[in-house]
Amino acid sequence: MARYDFASDNTAPAAPEAMEALVAANTGFTSGYGSDPVSARAADAVRALLDSDAEVRFVASGTAANSLALAALCRPFESVLAHEHAHVRTDETGAPGFFGQGLGLVGLPGASGRIDAAGLAGPLSEPDVAHRQALAALSLTNATEYGTVYSPEALAELIAPAKARGLGVHLDGARLANAAAAGFDLKHVARLGVDILVLGGTKAGMSPTEAVVVFDRKLAHRFDARLKQAGQLPSKGRFYAAPFIGMLETGAFVTRAAHANAMARRLADLMPFPVRHPVEANAVFVEMDEPTLSRLHASGWFVYRFLDGSVRFMCSWATTPDAVDELGATLAALA
Amino acid sequence: MARYDFASDNTAPAAPEAMEALVAANTGFTSGYGSDPVSARAADAVRALLDSDAEVRFVASGTAANSLALAALCRPFESVLAHEHAHVRTDETGAPGFFGQGLGLVGLPGASGRIDAAGLAGPLSEPDVAHRQALAALSLTNATEYGTVYSPEALAELIAPAKARGLGVHLDGARLANAAAAGFDLKHVARLGVDILVLGGTKAGMSPTEAVVVFDRKLAHRFDARLKQAGQLPSKGRFYAAPFIGMLETGAFVTRAAHANAMARRLADLMPFPVRHPVEANAVFVEMDEPTLSRLHASGWFVYRFLDGSVRFMCSWATTPDAVDELGATLAALA
Amino acid sequence: MARYDFASDNTAPAAPEAMEALVAANTGFTSGYGSDPVSARAADAVRALLDSDAEVRFVASGTAANSLALAALCRPFESVLAHEHAHVRTDETGAPGFFGQGLGLVGLPGASGRIDAAGLAGPLSEPDVAHRQALAALSLTNATEYGTVYSPEALAELIAPAKARGLGVHLDGARLANAAAAGFDLKHVARLGVDILVLGGTKAGMSPTEAVVVFDRKLAHRFDARLKQAGQLPSKGRFYAAPFIGMLETGAFVTRAAHANAMARRLADLMPFPVRHPVEANAVFVEMDEPTLSRLHASGWFVYRFLDGSVRFMCSWATTPDAVDELGATLAALA
Amino acid sequence: MARYDFASDNTAPAAPEAMEALVAANTGFTSGYGSDPVSARAADAVRALLDSDAEVRFVASGTAANSLALAALCRPFESVLAHEHAHVRTDETGAPGFFGQGLGLVGLPGASGRIDAAGLAGPLSEPDVAHRQALAALSLTNATEYGTVYSPEALAELIAPAKARGLGVHLDGARLANAAAAGFDLKHVARLGVDILVLGGTKAGMSPTEAVVVFDRKLAHRFDARLKQAGQLPSKGRFYAAPFIGMLETGAFVTRAAHANAMARRLADLMPFPVRHPVEANAVFVEMDEPTLSRLHASGWFVYRFLDGSVRFMCSWATTPDAVDELGATLAALA
Repeated sequence: MARYDFASDNTAPAAPEAMEALVAANTGFTSGYGSDPVSARAADAVRALLDSDAEVRFVASGTAANSLALAALCRPFESVLAHEHAHVRTDETGAPGFFGQGLGLVGLPGASGRIDAAGLAGPLSEPDVAHRQALAALSLTNATEYGTVYSPEALAELIAPAKARGLGVHLDGARLANAAAAGFDLKHVARLGVDILVLGGTKAGMSPTEAVVVFDRKLAHRFDARLKQAGQLPSKGRFYAAPFIGMLETGAFVTRAAHANAMARRLADLMPFPVRHPVEANAVFVEMDEPTLSRLHASGWFVYRFLDGSVRFMCSWATTPDAVDELGATLAALA
Repeated sequence: MARYDFASDNTAPAAPEAMEALVAANTGFTSGYGSDPVSARAADAVRALLDSDAEVRFVASGTAANSLALAALCRPFESVLAHEHAHVRTDETGAPGFFGQGLGLVGLPGASGRIDAAGLAGPLSEPDVAHRQALAALSLTNATEYGTVYSPEALAELIAPAKARGLGVHLDGARLANAAAAGFDLKHVARLGVDILVLGGTKAGMSPTEAVVVFDRKLAHRFDARLKQAGQLPSKGRFYAAPFIGMLETGAFVTRAAHANAMARRLADLMPFPVRHPVEANAVFVEMDEPTLSRLHASGWFVYRFLDGSVRFMCSWATTPDAVDELGATLAALA
Repeated sequence: MARYDFASDNTAPAAPEAMEALVAANTGFTSGYGSDPVSARAADAVRALLDSDAEVRFVASGTAANSLALAALCRPFESVLAHEHAHVRTDETGAPGFFGQGLGLVGLPGASGRIDAAGLAGPLSEPDVAHRQALAALSLTNATEYGTVYSPEALAELIAPAKARGLGVHLDGARLANAAAAGFDLKHVARLGVDILVLGGTKAGMSPTEAVVVFDRKLAHRFDARLKQAGQLPSKGRFYAAPFIGMLETGAFVTRAAHANAMARRLADLMPFPVRHPVEANAVFVEMDEPTLSRLHASGWFVYRFLDGSVRFMCSWATTPDAVDELGATLAALA
Repeated sequence: MARYDFASDNTAPAAPEAMEALVAANTGFTSGYGSDPVSARAADAVRALLDSDAEVRFVASGTAANSLALAALCRPFESVLAHEHAHVRTDETGAPGFFGQGLGLVGLPGASGRIDAAGLAGPLSEPDVAHRQALAALSLTNATEYGTVYSPEALAELIAPAKARGLGVHLDGARLANAAAAGFDLKHVARLGVDILVLGGTKAGMSPTEAVVVFDRKLAHRFDARLKQAGQLPSKGRFYAAPFIGMLETGAFVTRAAHANAMARRLADLMPFPVRHPVEANAVFVEMDEPTLSRLHASGWFVYRFLDGSVRFMCSWATTPDAVDELGATLAALA
């Protein structure tokens, strides 16, 4: 049977801190749709994490959360700038266009998943014309799809000209915990001018949950109705809020991510194949030909070939040093 | 502080059988997006429950599940027949129109939440005209919004003429467990010709989860892509599947619902206000004027005034006889 | 063969003033997509008519124009108030929901097509709740579906409380020419606070064309992109603009409508069946049983039974007194 | 003042045959929404042109017609293959995604606007996966955006593998008249297996109108409702049908296009700049640097720089030899 330890950071179970909080929250009757005390406490924890008084909601799906964020920032006849390999462009079956009634997604180049600041200038300077979807938002991802981490300065370099042009800013933070563990100070998110953040719970080691953080209060108007209509205002909201309490109040949100990052570092250090991208978070991308990948699969380890043609190994809070070493031995034998 | 015991059947915690299965499933690494063994086992349990080889998926949201089912059955320029007070028409912020790109929802009358078979004949006989959304589907709910239960014969009386006209059939089973506990044989669902069922987990006492059951295999083509695009193909699928294992394999799905139904019966029996609808499942609707409702709220019990003007008391697996009696005493004092 | 003189006001040909302008505009090469001098001149004529410096665009379809106006005023999780028999609710195959991604349409009662001001108070005072589509706009129609005309005072009585609640205001002016001919001063439209007007050309005696008039400049931002995406930014814009030049610069817009109104008056005066609604514009609605209507059809005159059960006779610029008298004689024989 | 003779083939007026038919049709009362005798006669003319008994409708907008065709062939979680520079992908403000609720458009390479048959094999062989929009349709354009013409054999080479994979086929025929004039036998369209054709009227020299031709009868079910909801079922249908009568019954549809093609040939022959693409229809694309283009604009001729960086000169039925020669002299002076 195949082992999925490195296939993704969502193949792991939920961390004990998340599960214990979930079980603890499962008591007594509470009001629904996010109005319960568990949700309130979790929202406070998110606000403390981000040092911001933003509106916070807990939802089931990162795909829906990102898409709703883009739909809030961009009308159907407008478009969003994002890295050409951003999850919202490549891995969500066109969800932003579905939630956003056909909104456009314009791909930007950039090494190792980070948008190239110079490459942003061109699109931002193009005139509005009625026969194309004009720009309305910039979508960023930190940590990126390729396991790299933007510094606050690098984000500022992208956000400032976008804001100057009037664009809204969305941050896909599915792996923001890993960025934080790599040294990215989360208090920068609000200060940088991000309008909506999707703060990932699932890949950070929780049971399925994501936090939608709305910094721009105008956008928050009737946001619950937006969520409800899209099937993202859960009746039993405490099940989505509790894992955040467990992970944030204990600090596990960052320490568990730090472990994942360390496991990626460990794997990179013993990797016998060329590593394609800087290993700054919890991913290792390597160059591997198809016969070798097939043999790796045959040996029982399942991993994916990614959009840039390299093979991706993801680590999570649950990745053990032993698993890394065992995989390393298998890879060494294949190399 | 207000007590929410009777406000809804989603204010209760999850039942032990669901939580234990959830915790038990939280071990080891598995593949994602519903391809894991937990999801497979839960799907088998659903198929056994329904005595059908249907496709089964586990999703986060009943609103989304119902809306996607309707979108699968009805194109934007077509419409769906549903009881005028059906949840999809009144309580989901227009979700079917959002997921279905403007599909129409035509309300049908009927006492106590059950569509009147005679009232169906009129719409079914109307000619197709281009300036109105022609009929494409019939949406049913069992148990109904008003706590009544359709018999198989009553459903057949609605489904047969709809099918004869070429309509697809959707069943909102948010409270199908309660219908089953009231004597509705679940093996009838497939035999009656339902095309898509949303089998409720949340209101049946689970952590948030719903099963989408696709009986019509043609509709199942690319259904995972439909779910993914709508943010309803969860990466950690086992968290949505496990509660169904816990509840179905133990029989708790029906026995817990039977308890809820019994609590509603107990409440009805001691109710000092006129009961508006037959108490066949887990709801009691009563006639109560606004000052009395305000005093009830002030006394610490929160319940809603419903669409028909009556006040709704919902029971769940977690409702205790003591709570019923305590509420009864309060009501007696108010009456 | 059936005669369609009274079936609708869109069964008539285009008036000479419109056709002559159309033919006159069909010369030489011009720039496209509404940037041509013909469109500019027609927009000036519309602005003069309305005594406003609004943005004006010419489009092909009233259904699309109304729907795009509502989509500009109302997000998918919000709703629009309109008379329960308003064209946007009953006769456009759900177009507002299609263009507006599921936006809601809430029907309001009111005699003879005019919204009852008292009936507006209830919906306007309802609290925002996440599980319903909250109000974002009020849609008005003048002249109404039932051939009645709002006075400026009556419109103000509806618009003022809507604006006070923060709603946008849309005016469906498919028959605004008829309202003007009945004494409604068009300079009131802007002053009353209408945000978007769809000024009807087709039913006013033009070849197919409607003017979209955007009074609220914020709404006009990227409006051409909105139109283009929806297939309503015609490349050969002059064909939609020219008829307005012909009708507005000559005054025929109102004088032709005055004729239509007079024909309706003439028909009402000789009508042997009970007239259901005040005859203030170009329609006569009468009570007629089904056998009589069938005999009328058999005698060669085609007219429709309308939503309120009465039978509608529409007059247009092309309706002749002889045709009215001929129809009157037929009706007298049937009565 | 700028001259627009070569800016596009929609800057010309309508041809006399179209206008005369339009004026001739403007008489008497007729039924609406395409049920009139003018529409019936025009549909017969289209069927004769194509030697097919297809369903034919006349609409206002090519953008809407193409988008509705794609929406009929492709669900939101699916995608359409088209040339990377196809009008539906680049010039319609995302209209297919708007009408198709986020449907995907996958760009294919190919020289001079023709899809490379070898490049089609890759996408067609990719497996269906839930996180990407799987293929549902192939969109073709003849004559292409770059003024080249597919032969029936070249189309067959694209359509056959697409059909084998189960895809529907759409043909954007905005310039099908030019393809016909270049020798493409229109009777091949149906035989090749095209499911929906949008037969261009506007660029062929008509007042604004396009014919939607539905060859696959299953797709035609409730097509009028689809059109109505999208604002493309014109009430005064004869205004969209009549120009087709005028152009098709006289043969002007092809002879006018032949003139346009000949003017492009004449321009190419005297062109002092390098011609980028084969001149097979009514367009000439040339290599011209930006200062030269600016001087051309300053000299009074307006033309566009196109997606591939070349400068486009379009000819139409109204382009005169004198204008070609005059432009040629200007270009010679600039070269």
